Amino acid sequence: MDRVAADPASAVSETRQWDRLMEMAKLGAIPGDGVNRACLTELDRQARRLLIAWAEPLGLTPSVDVIGNLFLRMEGTEPALAPVLAGSHMDSQPNGGRFDGIWGVLAALEAVQAIREAGMATRRPIEIVAWTNEEGGRFAPGCMGSMAYTGYRPPDTWDAVTDTEGLTFGAELRRQLEAERDIPRRGLGVVDGATPSAYVEAHIEQGPRLEAEDLEIGVVTGIQGSRWFTVEIHGRSDHAGTTPLRLRKDAVQDMLRAIAALNALMHDPEDVLRFTVARIEISPNSSNSVAERARFSIDFRHPDRTVLAERGDAIERVVKGALTTCSATVTERFNADPITFDRLVRDAVEKAARAQGLGTLRLPSGAFHDAQFLARVCPSGMIFVPSRGGVSHHPSEYTSPAHLAAGARVLAGVLADLADR
Amino acid sequence: MDRVAADPASAVSETRQWDRLMEMAKLGAIPGDGVNRACLTELDRQARRLLIAWAEPLGLTPSVDVIGNLFLRMEGTEPALAPVLAGSHMDSQPNGGRFDGIWGVLAALEAVQAIREAGMATRRPIEIVAWTNEEGGRFAPGCMGSMAYTGYRPPDTWDAVTDTEGLTFGAELRRQLEAERDIPRRGLGVVDGATPSAYVEAHIEQGPRLEAEDLEIGVVTGIQGSRWFTVEIHGRSDHAGTTPLRLRKDAVQDMLRAIAALNALMHDPEDVLRFTVARIEISPNSSNSVAERARFSIDFRHPDRTVLAERGDAIERVVKGALTTCSATVTERFNADPITFDRLVRDAVEKAARAQGLGTLRLPSGAFHDAQFLARVCPSGMIFVPSRGGVSHHPSEYTSPAHLAAGARVLAGVLADLADR
Repeated sequence: MDRVAADPASAVSETRQWDRLMEMAKLGAIPGDGVNRACLTELDRQARRLLIAWAEPLGLTPSVDVIGNLFLRMEGTEPALAPVLAGSHMDSQPNGGRFDGIWGVLAALEAVQAIREAGMATRRPIEIVAWTNEEGGRFAPGCMGSMAYTGYRPPDTWDAVTDTEGLTFGAELRRQLEAERDIPRRGLGVVDGATPSAYVEAHIEQGPRLEAEDLEIGVVTGIQGSRWFTVEIHGRSDHAGTTPLRLRKDAVQDMLRAIAALNALMHDPEDVLRFTVARIEISPNSSNSVAERARFSIDFRHPDRTVLAERGDAIERVVKGALTTCSATVTERFNADPITFDRLVRDAVEKAARAQGLGTLRLPSGAFHDAQFLARVCPSGMIFVPSRGGVSHHPSEYTSPAHLAAGARVLAGVLADLADR
Repeated sequence: MDRVAADPASAVSETRQWDRLMEMAKLGAIPGDGVNRACLTELDRQARRLLIAWAEPLGLTPSVDVIGNLFLRMEGTEPALAPVLAGSHMDSQPNGGRFDGIWGVLAALEAVQAIREAGMATRRPIEIVAWTNEEGGRFAPGCMGSMAYTGYRPPDTWDAVTDTEGLTFGAELRRQLEAERDIPRRGLGVVDGATPSAYVEAHIEQGPRLEAEDLEIGVVTGIQGSRWFTVEIHGRSDHAGTTPLRLRKDAVQDMLRAIAALNALMHDPEDVLRFTVARIEISPNSSNSVAERARFSIDFRHPDRTVLAERGDAIERVVKGALTTCSATVTERFNADPITFDRLVRDAVEKAARAQGLGTLRLPSGAFHDAQFLARVCPSGMIFVPSRGGVSHHPSEYTSPAHLAAGARVLAGVLADLADR
């Protein structure tokens, strides 16, 4: 293939990309146009095989690392140069939609295919990546694949983490690696000495701003920080009919007090702070046995690292201060600092969008993404497209084919640009 | 066998009864001396087979009715007379103990064996009964077996009730009836025209009073009423990182408000009222997706039917009034009036205890029991023995072998007395 100046954006196909998205959405389809495709499941493996089946005819080479991250490499004219990396994740929330994550992977495939079809060759290789377990819905926390790839955590950190069935992440990962033993194994990114030259992630906004301002492309400036905790309240089980309330150690009642106190700690009149309790497990969970144990999750996010530190560090004290009869343990499960993306990628996104005549908005990301960890090791950035009603993590999540095509065109431009530097 | 005056109480064996209890406790044993033996499981069926294996050599005849209640009949000298019924249940709470329910069945077996061994024959038949699903831990509500037997509800009322695995009561009952098709089938008690002459249930107190007053036998005066509800809060799932709190419909947060309002409704300075929220299920139950649905149980009990009516009927209004952004549905699952036991059984219990030189206390039952439904159709009553620390529905539930033997002696005297009238 000759190195020629070409316009890869014009080779992006709106219908091809949309058809692939709809085909992927069949794997784990749930009522209301939703998707439930947890990581390291048979459905996840089917989705990965489908991706490979689309990529191999384009001349892309698959490989998998020790944490299960899947790569598809388009060779560059100078193969020894560090590659440009582009992708996202293929796992979904339990009650998720058809676009979160998977679109970033398929947009990278569309962009690379467009670069090929435009007859263009890039100096640097381009690697499409699908990170393992970004959502954290089955195994908490999320972003395990990118944390391991960037050396932020060793890849065996989460081996003992269990899903609600009691299966461990370690055992399920081994099962997947075994099922994919025909795919060549590669080293673990930065840990094994291979740092990309840049990372670009396309994603739906998962917020209302692009739609509200009627703009096509979000130029993501950074990602707010996140801290996840698990609180476990330890009470005593007693008979619900015979035990006077004053003699109980009711884990449900003390959980209510703890969450009410946390609501007060996390109160923010500006409504910038995100505080969510969304997972609760009671034991023995029998209506006529006073709860012996109540476990709940805390998802706390803020763009300001001082707020994250001060309020996050206060959680344990506030929980314990709210209890009347029970005791509690508070465990931090995940801690990601707020980050600001490098100008290299932001400028490339704005330039590519301008070249397409698309309206852009600089905005931070409320959700965390694998890009948050890549930003620690190489210039990284993200491209957002509008989310209807700002809704995500729900079957009704929606972005139009035209908006998705615009995003893929920008990504194609950015990859062609960065891979030629 | 001759009809002779004899003292069946003296033939009660403390060690035989205790050994049988410990043997039964192996079926579903959990750490800390506990038992988890849910109704209509393989463990339940093993326990029923073990009971039959102990009863048949004594000349007792097993039979099963359409709701799975198991009977073991000792014939009387006048077989046409209505039998005296004695027993309890063999299912346990998920995190239950070794005595709740099962002791009432084994005490009846011990009492009948003692009557036999004392060389005594009774005019009336005596039937030992093990009621289906008293606990309601797997399939709510409890007392299905006695409700069906007494005609309080048709036996197919609960066919569609599901356990946490999604299995239905109807299908699991059919499976059990099929597995026990070698046991003779009998009619459904009162519904099919067979009303017992009396019903006696021996049970651990599940409260602290007998222990505190150092008395052996509780003469149960009645049972407080119970109302069970399920509340379902309907919100909307959203991304925990991107969705401002003011735009959310968070089912967990509105559940907290609803329970706090219910705590106020149910406040009772006398501490007689029992209000318990012990079962909670969140959907999708993923830490970074705002809760779309929160379902919780209400177990509400009181000895006064006016309080039960007024506060129970207010639950739906109070829940709905507490919500800020979500909607709710409130469903009543179980409603048992408070009852007062007949003097016939109470007097027989006091007389038998006096004959043994045992100290008695008249007291109401805080827990509900199958006797609550039997009391609607025949003279019924209960014998309590002390519970260490008042604890039940927990592995540490304990009653001493000596106290259990005293209870069985009183039951033997009561059955011999009532079956001769």
